[in-house]
Amino acid sequence: MYKHTVQLRVRYGETDQMGYVYYGNYASYFEVARVEALRRLGMSYRQLEEEGIMMPVLENHSYYHQPAVYDDLLSVEVTIKEMPSAKITFYYHIYNEKGKLVHEGETKLVFMRADTKKPCRPPQKMLALLHPYFL
Amino acid sequence: MYKHTVQLRVRYGETDQMGYVYYGNYASYFEVARVEALRRLGMSYRQLEEEGIMMPVLENHSYYHQPAVYDDLLSVEVTIKEMPSAKITFYYHIYNEKGKLVHEGETKLVFMRADTKKPCRPPQKMLALLHPYFL
Amino acid sequence: MYKHTVQLRVRYGETDQMGYVYYGNYASYFEVARVEALRRLGMSYRQLEEEGIMMPVLENHSYYHQPAVYDDLLSVEVTIKEMPSAKITFYYHIYNEKGKLVHEGETKLVFMRADTKKPCRPPQKMLALLHPYFL
Amino acid sequence: MYKHTVQLRVRYGETDQMGYVYYGNYASYFEVARVEALRRLGMSYRQLEEEGIMMPVLENHSYYHQPAVYDDLLSVEVTIKEMPSAKITFYYHIYNEKGKLVHEGETKLVFMRADTKKPCRPPQKMLALLHPYFL
Repeated sequence: MYKHTVQLRVRYGETDQMGYVYYGNYASYFEVARVEALRRLGMSYRQLEEEGIMMPVLENHSYYHQPAVYDDLLSVEVTIKEMPSAKITFYYHIYNEKGKLVHEGETKLVFMRADTKKPCRPPQKMLALLHPYFL
Repeated sequence: MYKHTVQLRVRYGETDQMGYVYYGNYASYFEVARVEALRRLGMSYRQLEEEGIMMPVLENHSYYHQPAVYDDLLSVEVTIKEMPSAKITFYYHIYNEKGKLVHEGETKLVFMRADTKKPCRPPQKMLALLHPYFL
Repeated sequence: MYKHTVQLRVRYGETDQMGYVYYGNYASYFEVARVEALRRLGMSYRQLEEEGIMMPVLENHSYYHQPAVYDDLLSVEVTIKEMPSAKITFYYHIYNEKGKLVHEGETKLVFMRADTKKPCRPPQKMLALLHPYFL
Repeated sequence: MYKHTVQLRVRYGETDQMGYVYYGNYASYFEVARVEALRRLGMSYRQLEEEGIMMPVLENHSYYHQPAVYDDLLSVEVTIKEMPSAKITFYYHIYNEKGKLVHEGETKLVFMRADTKKPCRPPQKMLALLHPYFL
């Protein structure tokens, strides 16, 4: 299991007139968190794309427990629970500054070759980097 | 069962560098579709809020079947399958201009009084408007 | 002078906790308006890109006269005042349902070849379509 | 003159299919930068709103010098050049990791009482905190 926590602050433009984070913006928080989790592991998603691998999303799930509000410094804990195959799933727990769980989510993505648009195996480097966490 | 279809065109700013609609933007399409579905039924969500009822989201689920791309004129079919209780669920099927299913989703929302932030029953008017579709 | 008016409805996710349209979202309204203005003229911006021409933005200016609010049906009037050279400028006036001017703006874009990333002349077809409006 | 620099990383969802940061997203970067500039000064914008003062935007100007791209770690330098009156103007210079100027902008906002929606003077505390920078 690989786990990493990222902090991010709620932007004004991410709120809506209810005074909460607009429900569609959590997907963006997930994206930031999983990219930083991969970077911490030693993988750059930008580099992955430059090497011809894309990771389009297959499924996304969001559970809204508490509203997050403007200027909250959120902690997004991202977890990879299984070694990736052609697919990889990221799980998220988002906590506010009081340590309260505000949101849970998960995203399933597929590895795809940019040239053929066909699914492919994850890059060898990613498997090698993740391997120690799944012994 | 109540069903309504809304058309909307993919904006440039909604795409990402993969050339697809960014995965987080479907939540916004869902929102447009369910608001228009309610308007067609005879309910204005704006008015609902002005009367002191909010509808925060509890859950959101997205299934990405095909990429939607820039300038696509999408048809978002929104369905209410059950009479709402304190909660209401909207189901979506999104088709592109070729009639291909590109996306499926569902959103569960709760009725809440804006003053007390407590869950409440749906407005009587909404129940009356929906009733004929569930006979 | 070429002028075209586009209607669009303010989405919930476009508001912020002030209860107004978030100030950054007008750029998206401008984009929708100028793309539809070109489409009405007979030019598809999607097709333009497919033919290898991009139109990145050089400048954008926004003047906020009145707040636009959730569910407002806005009228965005877009004007091309001069025949384009390597650059083209769009001017916008946005009115709410009461006919009140809520926003003014302008965007200057450059024609660029996608392959060389060099500025280029506007497509001959666009010049031909615009010509009658500048006699 | 008061100056502060904020770093932020370009999110995937902030790019468009041109492979650049979508032109409308700079307004969000400006917002993050000016809020952090105020926080560094000792003012929380969140608290300002809680105390009944809003700061809606009057004007926003953007100059696109170079494209910013996905995953760029941008440095946003924000400057307050004059002591605020009923209005305040923020100036921005955005640099990429190579130190290249990618963007310039400015935003003029007005101080407004949330209850009356009337313009007002800036909070005494803000003036006191800014004063040493304008001696």
